[in-house]
Amino acid sequence: MTTTPLSPTDRSRVRRHRDRQREDRAELHAVLDEALVAHLGRVVDGEPVVLPTLHARVGEVLYLHGSSGAASLRGDEPVCVTVTVLDGLVYARRWFTQSANYRSAVVRGRARRVTDTGEVLGALRALVTRVAPGQEDHAEPPSRRELAATAVIAVDLAEASVKARSGPPGDAEAVAAGDHRWAGVVGLATRVTGVTTCPALPADTPVPAHVPTG
Amino acid sequence: MTTTPLSPTDRSRVRRHRDRQREDRAELHAVLDEALVAHLGRVVDGEPVVLPTLHARVGEVLYLHGSSGAASLRGDEPVCVTVTVLDGLVYARRWFTQSANYRSAVVRGRARRVTDTGEVLGALRALVTRVAPGQEDHAEPPSRRELAATAVIAVDLAEASVKARSGPPGDAEAVAAGDHRWAGVVGLATRVTGVTTCPALPADTPVPAHVPTG
Repeated sequence: MTTTPLSPTDRSRVRRHRDRQREDRAELHAVLDEALVAHLGRVVDGEPVVLPTLHARVGEVLYLHGSSGAASLRGDEPVCVTVTVLDGLVYARRWFTQSANYRSAVVRGRARRVTDTGEVLGALRALVTRVAPGQEDHAEPPSRRELAATAVIAVDLAEASVKARSGPPGDAEAVAAGDHRWAGVVGLATRVTGVTTCPALPADTPVPAHVPTG
Repeated sequence: MTTTPLSPTDRSRVRRHRDRQREDRAELHAVLDEALVAHLGRVVDGEPVVLPTLHARVGEVLYLHGSSGAASLRGDEPVCVTVTVLDGLVYARRWFTQSANYRSAVVRGRARRVTDTGEVLGALRALVTRVAPGQEDHAEPPSRRELAATAVIAVDLAEASVKARSGPPGDAEAVAAGDHRWAGVVGLATRVTGVTTCPALPADTPVPAHVPTG
């Protein structure tokens, strides 16, 4: 695997737990491509506003979409898009060392409202594919009217940082000191719990192969 | 269940998909008490910064914690704390109607740095209990030195909104119009994938009953 440094700017450098900073662009891509939800931060009247949204990466660009009337998608403003994948809970011997295993990416940049129809369609296809691979071909692309009702913004992955924690509790030295209390990690993942067919369809409508069923 | 309205301020009112706005304070509490990760938004040098963090609710107060040196935990500044629980992916007939089932809470307010030791300890206990119920008694409370290294901020749940989507795809009318393509919902949940005992311990150290094993 080729390692391409993230080259964070000074302000995007990880300040706490620097050992958790990841420097490889491939890790940034991996976190963005795995997380299902992003949190978009903006400044509104001088105060922060953070809203959840879906996201998709195409090369070195992160796309978000929503209603064309949404204030959060006007573009031409500084944004921060953060995604977090929770991998586990770290049960330690002390409240202080209790922790979580996670990977998170923080992307800062100026949002650009995408106006080129080709780029909009590419972004929307990527957004469908990101959360529901295969669905981009099963479902209909947007009509002209739907396109007009949709806004897409792009954020370049120029200023991004990745932070991750993995592995066992950080207080293993307690064992040598005679503390034999259990400690460890509870692994977590997002799993499919079941598939519910649209009630307007016959119940025996076959579920297509691209739909995950568990 | 008593219904206590959230009474959002004008600026915290849901603007898009108003049908998704929830008005009951109990729903705010439920989302905050279920989500394992929060995203804390701040304004730094006029630009937004969003970082993931653990959170816990005690009554009508939301607590966040971290290193006492963390810039994000100085308090006395406007913050936005957003939590999102993803319940499923909505596979629709059109890219435009493709969606997600989720519950999200957006809490805005002025962060208050907690300095009272009793309140700090209560918040830290709640933070451990939130993600690892039972662990607050299994693990040691902080020493004086650990307390000095820990910062806790509080945000009152005075200005908050809850938005949620649930149920089948929104384009069921397509069936009556002759579109028999499958559509439906893929349910998602965070699940325990396994438990790994700290490698410094004997492998047969019993896992306590309060630790979820799947």
